[in-house]
Amino acid sequence: MDLYGRDFIVTQEWALDELQTLLDLAARMKRDRFSPRWTDLLAHRTFLMFFYNPSVRTRLSFEAAATELGGHAQFMTPSAGRFKTQKQAGETIEDAARVMARYCCGIGIRILEDKVPYYGAGNEMLREYAHWADVPIINMADDRFHPCQGMADLLGWAEWYGEGPGRPNYANLRGKNFLLTWGSGALARSWCSVQEALLVASRFGLNVTIARPEGYDLDGEVYDWTRQNCAANGTSFRIVDDPESGYDGAHVVYSRNWVTAAAYQDGLFQKQAEIEKALAIPGWTTTAARMARTDHAIFTHPMPVDRGTEVSDEVASGPRSAIYDVAENRLHVQKAVMALTMGNL
Amino acid sequence: MDLYGRDFIVTQEWALDELQTLLDLAARMKRDRFSPRWTDLLAHRTFLMFFYNPSVRTRLSFEAAATELGGHAQFMTPSAGRFKTQKQAGETIEDAARVMARYCCGIGIRILEDKVPYYGAGNEMLREYAHWADVPIINMADDRFHPCQGMADLLGWAEWYGEGPGRPNYANLRGKNFLLTWGSGALARSWCSVQEALLVASRFGLNVTIARPEGYDLDGEVYDWTRQNCAANGTSFRIVDDPESGYDGAHVVYSRNWVTAAAYQDGLFQKQAEIEKALAIPGWTTTAARMARTDHAIFTHPMPVDRGTEVSDEVASGPRSAIYDVAENRLHVQKAVMALTMGNL
Amino acid sequence: MDLYGRDFIVTQEWALDELQTLLDLAARMKRDRFSPRWTDLLAHRTFLMFFYNPSVRTRLSFEAAATELGGHAQFMTPSAGRFKTQKQAGETIEDAARVMARYCCGIGIRILEDKVPYYGAGNEMLREYAHWADVPIINMADDRFHPCQGMADLLGWAEWYGEGPGRPNYANLRGKNFLLTWGSGALARSWCSVQEALLVASRFGLNVTIARPEGYDLDGEVYDWTRQNCAANGTSFRIVDDPESGYDGAHVVYSRNWVTAAAYQDGLFQKQAEIEKALAIPGWTTTAARMARTDHAIFTHPMPVDRGTEVSDEVASGPRSAIYDVAENRLHVQKAVMALTMGNL
Repeated sequence: MDLYGRDFIVTQEWALDELQTLLDLAARMKRDRFSPRWTDLLAHRTFLMFFYNPSVRTRLSFEAAATELGGHAQFMTPSAGRFKTQKQAGETIEDAARVMARYCCGIGIRILEDKVPYYGAGNEMLREYAHWADVPIINMADDRFHPCQGMADLLGWAEWYGEGPGRPNYANLRGKNFLLTWGSGALARSWCSVQEALLVASRFGLNVTIARPEGYDLDGEVYDWTRQNCAANGTSFRIVDDPESGYDGAHVVYSRNWVTAAAYQDGLFQKQAEIEKALAIPGWTTTAARMARTDHAIFTHPMPVDRGTEVSDEVASGPRSAIYDVAENRLHVQKAVMALTMGNL
Repeated sequence: MDLYGRDFIVTQEWALDELQTLLDLAARMKRDRFSPRWTDLLAHRTFLMFFYNPSVRTRLSFEAAATELGGHAQFMTPSAGRFKTQKQAGETIEDAARVMARYCCGIGIRILEDKVPYYGAGNEMLREYAHWADVPIINMADDRFHPCQGMADLLGWAEWYGEGPGRPNYANLRGKNFLLTWGSGALARSWCSVQEALLVASRFGLNVTIARPEGYDLDGEVYDWTRQNCAANGTSFRIVDDPESGYDGAHVVYSRNWVTAAAYQDGLFQKQAEIEKALAIPGWTTTAARMARTDHAIFTHPMPVDRGTEVSDEVASGPRSAIYDVAENRLHVQKAVMALTMGNL
Repeated sequence: MDLYGRDFIVTQEWALDELQTLLDLAARMKRDRFSPRWTDLLAHRTFLMFFYNPSVRTRLSFEAAATELGGHAQFMTPSAGRFKTQKQAGETIEDAARVMARYCCGIGIRILEDKVPYYGAGNEMLREYAHWADVPIINMADDRFHPCQGMADLLGWAEWYGEGPGRPNYANLRGKNFLLTWGSGALARSWCSVQEALLVASRFGLNVTIARPEGYDLDGEVYDWTRQNCAANGTSFRIVDDPESGYDGAHVVYSRNWVTAAAYQDGLFQKQAEIEKALAIPGWTTTAARMARTDHAIFTHPMPVDRGTEVSDEVASGPRSAIYDVAENRLHVQKAVMALTMGNL
């Protein structure tokens, strides 16, 4: 298997054994973080991080990943350049991507819903970069997908159902029950993390339950892929519309606020309207009482956590909370992606 | 002595022999800046710099320090993240600190008076980070203290009263006279540098004189600590309220503008009011005529210098000005702090 | 020849054999990009990049250059500091430069016309930094000159008239015809790149033709230097005022929008007025039809390209377009400059 030069835009477009290779390397890297086997893989190489949307965790983990592989990650925001849009003269993505590829070994891009005129436009932009750049494009979260988060989630769950940090067991996840539940709150969050979680949970053999208020369904194509993944694994897929029943017998509980499919109007992401809509639906909080209905489930969340709203402090900081381990796994997963696609490993 | 994992928030909380260890290492590093003894101490490690307030000198010296130790310093500003405040949903310091600690070997924080609602709130925030993070928290200047500046000052004075750059003599400082004088000007400056200077001067055996206009007294607890340090060393501590007399017989003259204790109102730092207050008190400038009253004193300042107002050009660029040496020492002192607390030296 | 410690502010101030040394090293670096001969030249050293004006390409190529030489480039903007101006208290360039030089091995500065009160003030500021700093000052583009772009241009042309990437032939450029033509468009661009192109083209023996609408003449001193260079080489220099005739027999065609000499009024760069002035002069576009008049010329441009206005897509993406090679050469040229002036090579 040779993953050199591959883009990483959504997990669904990588074969299962390719994802498994990535996860296995990430776990080995976690067990032996500064081994000379990987500390020179990107020596003297530049990884370019393009942040249309800022992010502490994503920047910190990608930049640290490059450093730990011996390379250097450059931080760039589009305001630093002059890109062509319908309203202003500037550089085309073709020209930007072809030049950047001459300087660096890979490009990470982060662009979320509030920076694009319609749902999916961010993901389309990543694909245009991937079309023109000779180096891998890594999705650092777009308006549809967040593959590195999905891989970090899965590694974390497999560690908790395995022998602990760096010792995941993926077979133990098969047949377990995954609950993705909408969470109350005023953050008007993106679909990318939760959609990627649906894809990886279904891909790796978990039964999938989505709990959300009416009107809060996600991307239809992601639902279709999730159904296909479940069918291929002989597992179940269902959607419930109450905040309680999904917890029954769950093994992995994931709660997170997200916006409705009606979030775009007139070419603009309507953040304030989405916040008001969500504030009218309180009570979708993961509490200890709800966790008590599960089969001793772990709690997972891509962070930052909106404590008291998406989840109670008792659960988020409780003995079955996997949130810090999952967060740490972003680093190891991203190191593995970079090592495989750029490091010639 | 093992300083691995220690926070560095104010010099007063480190034992004298710990500070001496730090200073000795800094001087050795200055004498042999790129020795292989230290160029790999932070290899492949990430030091996170969190700048609530921007600063050219602090960023440059910390980032260079990490580079010279073989590591990498990441530059982050809080606007890049979503932190919880009373007014907005976001991430708690607990969650931010616990995750950051998974990615990096230490965290530097800079937060000054204009970013906090009351005096001391910046320092409290550093201590909350220190409570939750498993890695050292380094104070890159808060509203109360600036320990790296204090150490750089002291190293500089000891070099000037020793055998020159990299050859400090601390014994020679004992019994010398230190003058900290308020300076005129429109910069409404923080207390952190001057307060740290009082602590290190008194700690290392200098007699302390503070000269300031009425109303310009500093933090009472810092005065108390300074008095205690002087008492322990058998040295003197006094406060004068005229701009002349303090110079008599001084060996180290430090002039700097700072604000009054009344600078906060309604939860806001009143910068403009403080500027106006200070502009009504001209004439507190360190001039050659005033320096002539001293015992051949050196001139020290943490920079940036407000030339013509805090100090005349003749003194700032004169043959007894230690300002550039002190500035350079920031680098060496910070390398030593990082090597000891993060580099397992 | 020893270039250690030299500033690089404009090519005209370096001797021809010094420029040739720089170009030869750049070509060797391009042929063997990660050779251990250069990957440690700046090990543990900091190169400071000071961006008064942002730029994706310049930052990316300088920061990658430092990384590939084993060092680290810090990104700084002046808003991060407190510099003295006529209107505000702050630090002098003397103090800033003298302190910075204690921390780093070299300083790059980028400052364009919209950040200065009159033409040439940016270049003057670079020279003030160069006066005070003990380390080399590298011009990353000012309001007059862009020496790294000029060297990248020349290396690219010599590769196209040589044996391809990394195999330039400078002798073949002698006696060739260079056309610099003004380009239509709404970008109100700086003079720095085109002026540097005039200097290097004339310096290395090409005949020079400038085509521009009336009122669009460049810096008189640059014209004088270009004439002198042509005289020394026995080549021709002429200026035409129509958008067609300059193409006849050209071997290198360079099109680019730029502003008039009247761009400054009342101490401000009048960007909007310049845009309107230029929009009234359409039709100065490099098209395939115009390229057909040349002697099989290559097309060159410093990028970003304003496609459809300065040049047609057909030419910019055509088989004789050197734009991506020239862009890549920025990296190699800058590595060579840093290696020679800071790396003790």
